[in-house]
Amino acid sequence: MTARSLHHIGIAVDDLDAAIDLWVALFGASLEHRERVDDQGVEAASLAVGPSRVELLAPLRPDTPVGRFLEKRGPGMHHVAFEVDDVAAELRRLQASGTRLIDETPRRGMFGLQVAFVHPEATGGVLAEFVGDE
Amino acid sequence: MTARSLHHIGIAVDDLDAAIDLWVALFGASLEHRERVDDQGVEAASLAVGPSRVELLAPLRPDTPVGRFLEKRGPGMHHVAFEVDDVAAELRRLQASGTRLIDETPRRGMFGLQVAFVHPEATGGVLAEFVGDE
Repeated sequence: MTARSLHHIGIAVDDLDAAIDLWVALFGASLEHRERVDDQGVEAASLAVGPSRVELLAPLRPDTPVGRFLEKRGPGMHHVAFEVDDVAAELRRLQASGTRLIDETPRRGMFGLQVAFVHPEATGGVLAEFVGDE
Repeated sequence: MTARSLHHIGIAVDDLDAAIDLWVALFGASLEHRERVDDQGVEAASLAVGPSRVELLAPLRPDTPVGRFLEKRGPGMHHVAFEVDDVAAELRRLQASGTRLIDETPRRGMFGLQVAFVHPEATGGVLAEFVGDE
């Protein structure tokens, strides 16, 4: 099995409106979707850059994963997401090889897609996400 | 003007061979190119993930930008690169709006492409790169 492509890169931001304006002005990104994802404790904006996608993430509260990330490291690159056919199958594959996961089963992410995170300890310090329709 | 797409994401690593093996095993990435870029003080490996690209960067010496990044933050996501038609024109556009740059003129990057970096202070903590044929 393999990832089909990068689905998006995730960026942690303090102020979602200001960050959207900045990415539009600096890089010609365009806002395609905005959604509050309570399960992840974020308000998220998906920006298109041609066929690519950047997801800006602002924490709903300080005691959330993105809130703690901002407290510890400040705003910046947060995660990289890979598009796969079957998120649960990828998790089973990595579990079978002893890879440390954050999510052992998929959960609901933006756009209603299935998502799951791999632990940065398993990837050389990169928080990695799988995204898929199922 | 606008970025055409994400060109790659850059990941800082300690051990290039080990990191390549890891990205192949975890995400089905495939090695497409490997190059020593003396101007940036790195040995770099470009990995394809479908139509997307991940660039793994290992420092040639500790006293390089990626060496200092590893010393300060450890391995992980380092920068995001946007594909543009004309790197110098993008730099002029950002300079005209007062955006802080790292490179005021393009320099040579991997694949012989023109590259230039925008300062993270201007982007909300994200080291951003423009990549183009000219």
